[in-house]
Amino acid sequence: MYNFRTDLADERRDLYKKANKIENEVDGIEAEEEQITDKIKVTRVKITDEQGEQAIGKKQGNYITIDIQKMNIITEEEAEKASETLANELRKLVENKIQSKEDVLIVGLGNEEVTPDALGPNVVKDIEVTRHIINYLPQYIDENARPVSAIAPGVLGTTGIETLEVIKGVVDNIKPKLLIVIDALASRSMERISSTIQLSDTGIVPGAGVGNTRKELTENTLGIPVIALGIPTVVETAVVVNDALDLFIEKLQQEANSNDYLNQLKEEDNYEQIKEALLPKDFNFIVTPKEIDELILNMSEVVARGINMSM
Amino acid sequence: MYNFRTDLADERRDLYKKANKIENEVDGIEAEEEQITDKIKVTRVKITDEQGEQAIGKKQGNYITIDIQKMNIITEEEAEKASETLANELRKLVENKIQSKEDVLIVGLGNEEVTPDALGPNVVKDIEVTRHIINYLPQYIDENARPVSAIAPGVLGTTGIETLEVIKGVVDNIKPKLLIVIDALASRSMERISSTIQLSDTGIVPGAGVGNTRKELTENTLGIPVIALGIPTVVETAVVVNDALDLFIEKLQQEANSNDYLNQLKEEDNYEQIKEALLPKDFNFIVTPKEIDELILNMSEVVARGINMSM
Amino acid sequence: MYNFRTDLADERRDLYKKANKIENEVDGIEAEEEQITDKIKVTRVKITDEQGEQAIGKKQGNYITIDIQKMNIITEEEAEKASETLANELRKLVENKIQSKEDVLIVGLGNEEVTPDALGPNVVKDIEVTRHIINYLPQYIDENARPVSAIAPGVLGTTGIETLEVIKGVVDNIKPKLLIVIDALASRSMERISSTIQLSDTGIVPGAGVGNTRKELTENTLGIPVIALGIPTVVETAVVVNDALDLFIEKLQQEANSNDYLNQLKEEDNYEQIKEALLPKDFNFIVTPKEIDELILNMSEVVARGINMSM
Amino acid sequence: MYNFRTDLADERRDLYKKANKIENEVDGIEAEEEQITDKIKVTRVKITDEQGEQAIGKKQGNYITIDIQKMNIITEEEAEKASETLANELRKLVENKIQSKEDVLIVGLGNEEVTPDALGPNVVKDIEVTRHIINYLPQYIDENARPVSAIAPGVLGTTGIETLEVIKGVVDNIKPKLLIVIDALASRSMERISSTIQLSDTGIVPGAGVGNTRKELTENTLGIPVIALGIPTVVETAVVVNDALDLFIEKLQQEANSNDYLNQLKEEDNYEQIKEALLPKDFNFIVTPKEIDELILNMSEVVARGINMSM
Repeated sequence: MYNFRTDLADERRDLYKKANKIENEVDGIEAEEEQITDKIKVTRVKITDEQGEQAIGKKQGNYITIDIQKMNIITEEEAEKASETLANELRKLVENKIQSKEDVLIVGLGNEEVTPDALGPNVVKDIEVTRHIINYLPQYIDENARPVSAIAPGVLGTTGIETLEVIKGVVDNIKPKLLIVIDALASRSMERISSTIQLSDTGIVPGAGVGNTRKELTENTLGIPVIALGIPTVVETAVVVNDALDLFIEKLQQEANSNDYLNQLKEEDNYEQIKEALLPKDFNFIVTPKEIDELILNMSEVVARGINMSM
Repeated sequence: MYNFRTDLADERRDLYKKANKIENEVDGIEAEEEQITDKIKVTRVKITDEQGEQAIGKKQGNYITIDIQKMNIITEEEAEKASETLANELRKLVENKIQSKEDVLIVGLGNEEVTPDALGPNVVKDIEVTRHIINYLPQYIDENARPVSAIAPGVLGTTGIETLEVIKGVVDNIKPKLLIVIDALASRSMERISSTIQLSDTGIVPGAGVGNTRKELTENTLGIPVIALGIPTVVETAVVVNDALDLFIEKLQQEANSNDYLNQLKEEDNYEQIKEALLPKDFNFIVTPKEIDELILNMSEVVARGINMSM
Repeated sequence: MYNFRTDLADERRDLYKKANKIENEVDGIEAEEEQITDKIKVTRVKITDEQGEQAIGKKQGNYITIDIQKMNIITEEEAEKASETLANELRKLVENKIQSKEDVLIVGLGNEEVTPDALGPNVVKDIEVTRHIINYLPQYIDENARPVSAIAPGVLGTTGIETLEVIKGVVDNIKPKLLIVIDALASRSMERISSTIQLSDTGIVPGAGVGNTRKELTENTLGIPVIALGIPTVVETAVVVNDALDLFIEKLQQEANSNDYLNQLKEEDNYEQIKEALLPKDFNFIVTPKEIDELILNMSEVVARGINMSM
Repeated sequence: MYNFRTDLADERRDLYKKANKIENEVDGIEAEEEQITDKIKVTRVKITDEQGEQAIGKKQGNYITIDIQKMNIITEEEAEKASETLANELRKLVENKIQSKEDVLIVGLGNEEVTPDALGPNVVKDIEVTRHIINYLPQYIDENARPVSAIAPGVLGTTGIETLEVIKGVVDNIKPKLLIVIDALASRSMERISSTIQLSDTGIVPGAGVGNTRKELTENTLGIPVIALGIPTVVETAVVVNDALDLFIEKLQQEANSNDYLNQLKEEDNYEQIKEALLPKDFNFIVTPKEIDELILNMSEVVARGINMSM
């Protein structure tokens, strides 16, 4: 399979269409776009069969992308509109799976000590939890309120425990009917960093995009439906350089300055070689806006408010 | 039972002896002191039967108190000595319960967003976890290493989930042989704030000292031995005022300025009245050194290093 | 002079009236109250001559107190109303001193590493500074905008430099026409912690309330008008105990359980003795709500937004 | 002049030698290397005349580079050795400029809310300041102690005030004899991020490496000698891509797969085009290790301890 190096179904579909020179829609995939405001756009991609599944390497199900432009200079009003858009899309997915008063557990994946990985734990801090109030002080809360709980299980490197092991333990004990899992994703596009939200009803594999595959969090492994809410926070440096090289050769081709060797090179995937040749081995180099700390805070707020509104 | 308003076995024993004018040891209690350096002292209290249990309202078992003087101006060398002392005492308790290569799970209770409650989560961040290395990369670690994992489960108010529910879920899934639970305690003594460590092999009830009783974390509820590591980080304001009043009347008595009414008053427990009369209701008022942020950081470091040394 | 142990003119006036059994207003002091909403109240105290000055130990000038009830559970709407109230009162003081396009420098006093002392530095982080835009990119800003700059000079203990020395240096170099200085205050009332704002046009002496007197920040020392914005964030433990003792003896007197000795004691100021007898010497013990971290964050937001609105 | 896109004299010298195919030393430049341990290396570059100055675009003076390998997995012992090495080199520079009891002011440039820019403010927090003790409590300190003060002036974008204006104000008021200014630098090498320290006795221009030139901090502008301590914390994304492209064409040339157009391209500086063509405009994209938060903390500790040891 083509190596997409992005977790976004939307980006994968674009890459697949471009690579295979497909004008219309890919077989087994349906897609629609809705412009919410001039800054906010929703794209709904549905993978309907195995053909679509194999084309872009994502499970059958719904993948909704919310793009927010210029997240760094977003006004308070636009941020609220973004939260509202998220709430609307999320509500549809949730209501498709469970009844109105059934329990939801929100899980924020990631390491809160690592800025681009802290989104999940940050969101969890701002979730309005109600499960304990409904259990212990029902008189203080609307009787139709949905029980919501929230947890940040940490990462394997700092806990020594697989995320799935923690989550499975909690799920077995408190028996929610649905999981919403928030995670940082990889994307190919620098512009999408902390300004795109992907929702899907197929669950997720933590860290899929950056190479450290852990056990998946899905209905298969947990026994209840899992909605994934993912946000791109990093682009790998080797991906940026690889894309730059492709663009560069493309430009040479247009100007008739290319040659056979280069033309062939462009057809190949040079990611591994670039990684090998260009990047120091000791670290996991990423490309990120210098303002990432602030972007992550803004996005955490948009997401937490959106989830709270949908519950 | 007398209301001790402290979680420290050591303080309860002192209060009990004073209240009952006992010169020697309380029946059912054994105690010994060891001065480690001129700044560090270890007190080992053992509750041996039901009589001791009822006297001070603590379960039968071992209670070890490590006192470190002038924690605010501690040198690097003294801090290391404190960690070493903790490691020695902890190692004895652990080896009493499990074999050398058996799994330990460290649990840091408390809310990391609330300074005096953040000690547990802070310590967890500095624990050297090994369980995942032993599982996935055994070639990189000494074959006699003990599998250690660590988790900060958050608090009911921010997760909506009882601490016991999270811990029980994790314990059921990863099956450690022993738990070490770190928690902030209440004390009656301002001098003990962030400068005393209590170890015990009887488990704990989170938040026991400050009124918000949750379900206990003990061998009863979890099925494996639980070592509690507690550190006083707050004194309740009503306790300080109550103690001040007692001292005040005592001084009046010494100077023959007291009267019948006052003498009688001193025999009573005026805590509830003080709480009612003097303190605003909206908050949970505590007495704390202004330098608490720094003290908590220093103590977290001492404890994390001590645990790491003992493993 | 009576030792008020509060920085709030409003509290001093109450204490003075009570101590001197004054029914109406103190000579040399004018006062008015305005209830803004059911949760927000403004009290304007004006010290008009030397008699008022000597009575409560505050310089001639305006002292405006904004009280916000239940700051811990404030809604977003109420918080905005509080900011608006602050903006209105502040605007009047500012317009009394300088013209519409004249430079203002905002100074946030305090140590950001010490929770109850971090309010000033926190507010400064959220001030919308415009001076550099007006200087370098005037096309991007309304031509009537006021040049605003902001600085957090740190504290003597961590910089080795007097606050006045830093501020004077900056004032001499960038020549603003007015200073607004934000500082944490001491109060006698636990209920006022992080829920009262005092504005005054007389400048301030940093740390006056908690014993570490530094050089004053006033028009005298800086050559430009200084508006002080102060917020109580701590109550000293000895003050709480002292007040509790007074209340206690008062209750004894009412119940005719007092005696001559106690009656006399109540007339005295026992603060120093209490401090000596009851409190460990190594720390600066304060009484604070356990939720102080969150209260400080909420209040910082209210204040920063209020200042931004007034500029 | 060649556009080096690095603030490190050492890197510029290498680039200049490579570009001009110089085997030995550049005229007007002297250099020596010393391997301190197998992980720590010191390179001392001295620019002795105008020729050297023009070659690499740095003022005449001393540039000392301390390289620490594998900073991410450094042991406590190695970190201390690194601090010691820094202390030795710094001490020589300081003693060259001022007498033993003369005042030093440490300045930490940068924005503490932006991870890769927070190094300066972080270091300042750990400096042991003595100036106020010598002034107010001389009995508590060695009579030969050097008065040290420290300040983090913030950045133009958040204060509205030029760094030079703040520093000049403070210098005029407290009259130190020497400034040590700590700043984040740009480098061309990802491996140097948070693992190289450059010392120089020529002062600095804040932000020189990343395009936002502010007024310089030198003896010219401040009237006292300025030692600069700089640490690379970012590499610009366009620089990484540009370097990757050069390496790529070089490889084509070696394999005889290049062509005239490419050969010529390699001689040019394509930085601006890459920046234009490849990078989104809204952000300042940087390449950084994902572990940058932790690296910055480790490096801050090494630097603060090194400065403290040298004073």
